[in-house]
Amino acid sequence: MYFEDFRVGDVFTTAAVTLDEHDIIDFARRFDPQPFHIDADAARQSIFAGLIASGWHVLCLTFAEVVRSGVLEGGGQGSPGIDELRWLKPVRPGDTLHTVMTVVDIRPSATRTDRGYVTVSFEVKNQGHETVTSYRAVEIMRRRPPPQSGT
Amino acid sequence: MYFEDFRVGDVFTTAAVTLDEHDIIDFARRFDPQPFHIDADAARQSIFAGLIASGWHVLCLTFAEVVRSGVLEGGGQGSPGIDELRWLKPVRPGDTLHTVMTVVDIRPSATRTDRGYVTVSFEVKNQGHETVTSYRAVEIMRRRPPPQSGT
Repeated sequence: MYFEDFRVGDVFTTAAVTLDEHDIIDFARRFDPQPFHIDADAARQSIFAGLIASGWHVLCLTFAEVVRSGVLEGGGQGSPGIDELRWLKPVRPGDTLHTVMTVVDIRPSATRTDRGYVTVSFEVKNQGHETVTSYRAVEIMRRRPPPQSGT
Repeated sequence: MYFEDFRVGDVFTTAAVTLDEHDIIDFARRFDPQPFHIDADAARQSIFAGLIASGWHVLCLTFAEVVRSGVLEGGGQGSPGIDELRWLKPVRPGDTLHTVMTVVDIRPSATRTDRGYVTVSFEVKNQGHETVTSYRAVEIMRRRPPPQSGT
């Protein structure tokens, strides 16, 4: 996929991924060791009334499926940033998540002819089709290489 | 730390953490398998001209140090979201990162007397004191429990 391949309104959906209690605790011990992510007993005393996945874990686990979907393959050159990231609902052991991406803006680079910016709205949904996490990211996409001449 | 312990302008600094090429590739294979995060040769052909850490890796690795700093300990009850997340500079093998947190807003909950919201500006800095990543997050903080009476 290159910059020219995207249109505002395009929708892409990733494969689904399920996480269990072991996954949640293992990730959080390394990256987000707050009690409600690593200790089921402490989590029951928290405002979440039970173990929940780190918000970072939800983002990373589901972003892996974004990459594997191929939507960034070929042209993707990373992202300068994200706006309006919201953790809307807790993610709990056994939840199955997928991401729906919608292209909301397309803009050629003003200074670099080899690339453009594709703004994508990401909605991470659970098995009940509830949006658990959402964010809007700009993706730097290469323009399609010109056809080789003289060969 | 509880809601009452924070003041606008308070600054907290985490311990530093260094990441190497193995860490970068290992994280990205699982969570962000784009060529410029997992393949040094492919990364040299990218706009980054060499292997860089996944932006998610930078966030997770440095957030672990935020938690370990104790600033969220006791009262921290997670976050509803983040605004203005920016990946400003690439993070490369051997870089050493720490986070400077500045309290920018404090707001009691309008509906729940047991908690309030502390808005924190996070700046992730490298060994050259350059800000590589920044974001602004709302942290839900419990109010300090009232002293026990009659005991």
